[in-house]
Amino acid sequence: MRDEARRLTPRFTARAADHDREGAFPEADFADLREAGFFGLMVPARLGGAGAGFAEYAEVAYELARGNGATALIFNMHAAVTGALSGVSDELAEALGLPREALEARDEHLKAAAGGSWYAVAMSERGVGSRLSRMATTYQPVDGGYRITGAKTFCSGAGHADAYLIAARSAADPTQVSQFLVPAGDGLTVEPTWDALGMRATASHDLHIDVTVPASALLGGMEGLALAVAQMAPHWMVASYAAVYVGVARAAVDAAIEHVKARGLDALPAVRARIGRADAAVAAAHLTVREAARRVDEAPGDPDTNRWVWRAKLLAGTTAADVAASMLEAAGTSAMRRGHPLERLYRDARAGSLQPATSDVCADWLGVDALGGDPDADGVAPRW
Amino acid sequence: MRDEARRLTPRFTARAADHDREGAFPEADFADLREAGFFGLMVPARLGGAGAGFAEYAEVAYELARGNGATALIFNMHAAVTGALSGVSDELAEALGLPREALEARDEHLKAAAGGSWYAVAMSERGVGSRLSRMATTYQPVDGGYRITGAKTFCSGAGHADAYLIAARSAADPTQVSQFLVPAGDGLTVEPTWDALGMRATASHDLHIDVTVPASALLGGMEGLALAVAQMAPHWMVASYAAVYVGVARAAVDAAIEHVKARGLDALPAVRARIGRADAAVAAAHLTVREAARRVDEAPGDPDTNRWVWRAKLLAGTTAADVAASMLEAAGTSAMRRGHPLERLYRDARAGSLQPATSDVCADWLGVDALGGDPDADGVAPRW
Amino acid sequence: MRDEARRLTPRFTARAADHDREGAFPEADFADLREAGFFGLMVPARLGGAGAGFAEYAEVAYELARGNGATALIFNMHAAVTGALSGVSDELAEALGLPREALEARDEHLKAAAGGSWYAVAMSERGVGSRLSRMATTYQPVDGGYRITGAKTFCSGAGHADAYLIAARSAADPTQVSQFLVPAGDGLTVEPTWDALGMRATASHDLHIDVTVPASALLGGMEGLALAVAQMAPHWMVASYAAVYVGVARAAVDAAIEHVKARGLDALPAVRARIGRADAAVAAAHLTVREAARRVDEAPGDPDTNRWVWRAKLLAGTTAADVAASMLEAAGTSAMRRGHPLERLYRDARAGSLQPATSDVCADWLGVDALGGDPDADGVAPRW
Amino acid sequence: MRDEARRLTPRFTARAADHDREGAFPEADFADLREAGFFGLMVPARLGGAGAGFAEYAEVAYELARGNGATALIFNMHAAVTGALSGVSDELAEALGLPREALEARDEHLKAAAGGSWYAVAMSERGVGSRLSRMATTYQPVDGGYRITGAKTFCSGAGHADAYLIAARSAADPTQVSQFLVPAGDGLTVEPTWDALGMRATASHDLHIDVTVPASALLGGMEGLALAVAQMAPHWMVASYAAVYVGVARAAVDAAIEHVKARGLDALPAVRARIGRADAAVAAAHLTVREAARRVDEAPGDPDTNRWVWRAKLLAGTTAADVAASMLEAAGTSAMRRGHPLERLYRDARAGSLQPATSDVCADWLGVDALGGDPDADGVAPRW
Repeated sequence: MRDEARRLTPRFTARAADHDREGAFPEADFADLREAGFFGLMVPARLGGAGAGFAEYAEVAYELARGNGATALIFNMHAAVTGALSGVSDELAEALGLPREALEARDEHLKAAAGGSWYAVAMSERGVGSRLSRMATTYQPVDGGYRITGAKTFCSGAGHADAYLIAARSAADPTQVSQFLVPAGDGLTVEPTWDALGMRATASHDLHIDVTVPASALLGGMEGLALAVAQMAPHWMVASYAAVYVGVARAAVDAAIEHVKARGLDALPAVRARIGRADAAVAAAHLTVREAARRVDEAPGDPDTNRWVWRAKLLAGTTAADVAASMLEAAGTSAMRRGHPLERLYRDARAGSLQPATSDVCADWLGVDALGGDPDADGVAPRW
Repeated sequence: MRDEARRLTPRFTARAADHDREGAFPEADFADLREAGFFGLMVPARLGGAGAGFAEYAEVAYELARGNGATALIFNMHAAVTGALSGVSDELAEALGLPREALEARDEHLKAAAGGSWYAVAMSERGVGSRLSRMATTYQPVDGGYRITGAKTFCSGAGHADAYLIAARSAADPTQVSQFLVPAGDGLTVEPTWDALGMRATASHDLHIDVTVPASALLGGMEGLALAVAQMAPHWMVASYAAVYVGVARAAVDAAIEHVKARGLDALPAVRARIGRADAAVAAAHLTVREAARRVDEAPGDPDTNRWVWRAKLLAGTTAADVAASMLEAAGTSAMRRGHPLERLYRDARAGSLQPATSDVCADWLGVDALGGDPDADGVAPRW
Repeated sequence: MRDEARRLTPRFTARAADHDREGAFPEADFADLREAGFFGLMVPARLGGAGAGFAEYAEVAYELARGNGATALIFNMHAAVTGALSGVSDELAEALGLPREALEARDEHLKAAAGGSWYAVAMSERGVGSRLSRMATTYQPVDGGYRITGAKTFCSGAGHADAYLIAARSAADPTQVSQFLVPAGDGLTVEPTWDALGMRATASHDLHIDVTVPASALLGGMEGLALAVAQMAPHWMVASYAAVYVGVARAAVDAAIEHVKARGLDALPAVRARIGRADAAVAAAHLTVREAARRVDEAPGDPDTNRWVWRAKLLAGTTAADVAASMLEAAGTSAMRRGHPLERLYRDARAGSLQPATSDVCADWLGVDALGGDPDADGVAPRW
Repeated sequence: MRDEARRLTPRFTARAADHDREGAFPEADFADLREAGFFGLMVPARLGGAGAGFAEYAEVAYELARGNGATALIFNMHAAVTGALSGVSDELAEALGLPREALEARDEHLKAAAGGSWYAVAMSERGVGSRLSRMATTYQPVDGGYRITGAKTFCSGAGHADAYLIAARSAADPTQVSQFLVPAGDGLTVEPTWDALGMRATASHDLHIDVTVPASALLGGMEGLALAVAQMAPHWMVASYAAVYVGVARAAVDAAIEHVKARGLDALPAVRARIGRADAAVAAAHLTVREAARRVDEAPGDPDTNRWVWRAKLLAGTTAADVAASMLEAAGTSAMRRGHPLERLYRDARAGSLQPATSDVCADWLGVDALGGDPDADGVAPRW
């Protein structure tokens, strides 16, 4: 699928400037992804998908992001939902005591993805970020299901997805955080708030929720799984988009190279040094993302794996921002014009460190961990 | 006038987001400047102006930039023209052998400024930047004056100024670079090309030139003065906008403080550390700009003065970019929304290092100078 | 006195390598300082001194440090003691209700300094640093005076000073921290523990104390003044050595320039860029130290003054370390040889950020301050 | 062998402070290495060695360096000689037209290594560094062999090795650079000049050469191979010690963790953040070294392999210096005492960027390469 992604990259690149300018959801990119079967990337073969692991996903994300980081970022959310669902093996489900219906629902969701549906994630809330323990969106049991009410923000792909993973707390017992997969339609209203510095084409709008869903929409078939999942398998929450930002960083280096060669600036020593250092930094960040991804496949949730996941997030975010800034300096004033790839990449790259877990939070997590503490519990601020 | 500038700053701040979004020239800000007499800031009292020196100008520019960096940047060009004209004293003119008519023209230009006219600068050209020695715009003598033809880019305030300082090379002898003050009107056509990452409200459009001017439009009344002026008094070309970028950097710190306090993030140690380091960095860059400005007034063109001028440019540019990036990280994702002051300031701040002389060129100049070379001649690339 | 300091600088430079290698107190440098009257630098003219203010001190410290940072650092301690004593004017003493004997003692101490005596400071303790509130050294009243017992570390000039400023807590009431000026001699035992990465010639050994002093040794003639003094006038505790580290940083730039010229490396663009950026950084740090010093003279203890004091400490420390590291990279492997000025300066420069208040503490102080908190009280860690 | 290296590491650590203080060759470490069979690490099994590839070497070097970077650095030179010799397969020899005697000599040298001999490298010269094309050491044919005369510097292990790889230019044709393996003994005189900031125990003294060797000492049995070897297989010249500096960086993180935990500083947020960021940076640099090493084994001399080799060198050097500096700041003043592991590691780590190829040269190489130039030919300075 990585080669397939590479085939799509130039198309995404060609459309990226327009989507960025308008802040418009990349319809054509997503049509390409659907047609090429990417919605089933993380779906097991037995359900009609490509059966990719996290490592393969990371390669795909990197390639897509070289074309358009925003497209890759929306796709990341779908990969996270389908990847996490695929990660619940029958054995794990049994060990957790999940009901049989939950497995059937899981298979339905995954089959739909393989068939061309895609999912968005509605997790963050205003003033709370992605901290599950503080969410104001609640659910309560009703006849045959649940009623969920609340509001989400930063919901990438809002208004375009076929269904939304929604995190909510139990109205009866706020310590219980659960996740639901809610189909687009009545009860979900998109408020078009997304108009941002970078990653403008993600359509990360607000989502207002007042919806009633059947019991099968509760992922895992049990309440209260969300926090455990976040701690056990942080890769989908912390680092899956690390690959996206490394792709953006590499795109910035490539755009700078093209620019300075076209302008005859490639003999300037300061330009060469900037590009040389940027190349090495991106290469190292990419290796880190790959190593984390490899370990996620091998030993998901393992302390050592998680350590690599947080390292990958930290380095991808800081590297993308630093490299894009330096590439803009290498290219000079003319690259500041809107429509120039570096102008967009500079703004897109900036988002990496800011997306949760932020770079400062990653540094704290890694520091506590290296010092022998419990990084999920002992942080300066609560992690989830 | 600094206090007067402080009075205007909040007005500029209130309008900045709109101007930025539209990329619209800040009409109302300029009306305020005109009304408050800022167009005569650099004009000697005997010609109706405020008679400010470079140091006072730098304070004014810093304050205006805290409100809107784009407004301050356009105003900087006017200050450069009037400041450079005021800097040609009768004694200097005599020493240079300038004709008496040149002094009369000088006084006319300055009186007009004090009366409410303002001037833009049309220097940079595509693919050449601001290097005078490579410009393609030419002039040739015609009856009673000169005909100037060519095209300029990055002309801040294009379409709004009352007259334009235009640099051009002699068609007969391309080593002669001269400057003309050309009134707006026929022969100057604005092509609205400016649509950039930052400093969007400067209206730094392209200017197409095919105009015939009277002999009195030739500044100094002699051909070939431009390069000498650039080397003798680099402050107006290299560092006058340094103060602008320090003002932008300070505005970013202030905006971050307001944001994190409103969000209750001010107790986070990483946020405090970022703000503490940013505060110190901006303070140091500001002192450097002030020291350069003080010396420009005291000993303009002196080697030691010039050294400070280049230091000021380097530090203002790098500090603005670094500080704005760190403040965005302190504030978090919500500050990435368009319309948030930090979102704009982050983009505006980025331009500082890229405007000529770029940070890399400044570092080279200062290095050659410190090593005992001739920094105007021995550089990796030609300076002008 | 700055010119006088400049006269001494080359002598200090010539001796610096030997003192560094042996970790030996710079006897000859101090003989030069005594002979040239520097021990009376901060002593009012009416008591036989030069009557310098903080700003003049900062200039002197910068110049001495260009010769040998270690010498300047020891001298800084003497300047702090005499400067703080001189800062207690008769008016202030009256306002604080200090007894008349305290003023007589003050004058005696200052007259002795003007006559050629010099004072060291014994403040830090192992595991406590310079936090007054946690010190284990105590004193208790005895007939006609006090008995002080405890142990100090990092006492620059230990074994060479004529007297020591010793901070101790009251055995009866540990919240009372007082300061004593104790003559060298019986009861003060130097343990030669100082053998460090940088600033090796400061002889900052441990001092073991079991001494009985007359009542006149209690500075101010009242118990419990130490904490108040630290908060009211932090400049002597926080930033007086900022000037020293800026001097060391400038010496590193100068040494690198000499080295690369001698080796013919001055045409390398990367070398030029390193030197250019270093020059600007040192210049800005120097201005910051000067601004802080100027304000200390004008409005000592003022919140705005203190802000500049902490900025100066932060920037001097970080700039010295960064600049020395970059200069070593500019110079190359051959500058790593012991005896090469850059080898020593690199190690000396490193100490700046680590001396209390450390750079991390400075950043926290400045952040709390900028955010409107009480930086002396609200810090992550107690300041004193 | 990596596990074996891990077994030795604590022994090296225990001795490191003494060797560093005295600047003494690590005799006991080398006895351990000999006994454990490390001298045969790169020797093919058919000649009695361990038959390790570059990747295994890199792991060993990393582990040894966690114990003592100086020991690892000397060992690196031996590994380079034996590794390069082992890299000349019979097929390659035939392709190059090397005489049969050269292969016999190769096998003899390797067998000796497996038997407990070790080799040093005498390449660098004063004022020339490691640029082969500028060396002043020459050789000329004499009866039955060659006479070599000249002087080398930075010869790690000088006075302790069993033989020395010496690079020299032909007196008859200075464009020919050849390499000889010269046994210790008459004709090689060590001048004990090594007394440096870091890596003090490497005994990298000067070597004076006036020696006559048999023809079999000419490596490859042909003149003029040295430059070709450097360009074809830069890993041994450019990046073999990259692993050493990553090991030193990791040792610094470990030492800081131990220090701050013992001092109770591990709850300070600034300390945590420093350690977290350092951990991630070292992990990424390590991955880069591993990736380069893996590719060297797979496709030695391949353009893509070489790119990774230069990236590894750049990142190892800059990461080691940055991390060690930050760890010292995390630990505080007490870690500046000589004998404290961080004090030594800080100095050792500094050497990485300065050893050729320096970080600035690496950045230039990578920049030229990324821009499509020939990085071995188009550099700002000649590479070899």
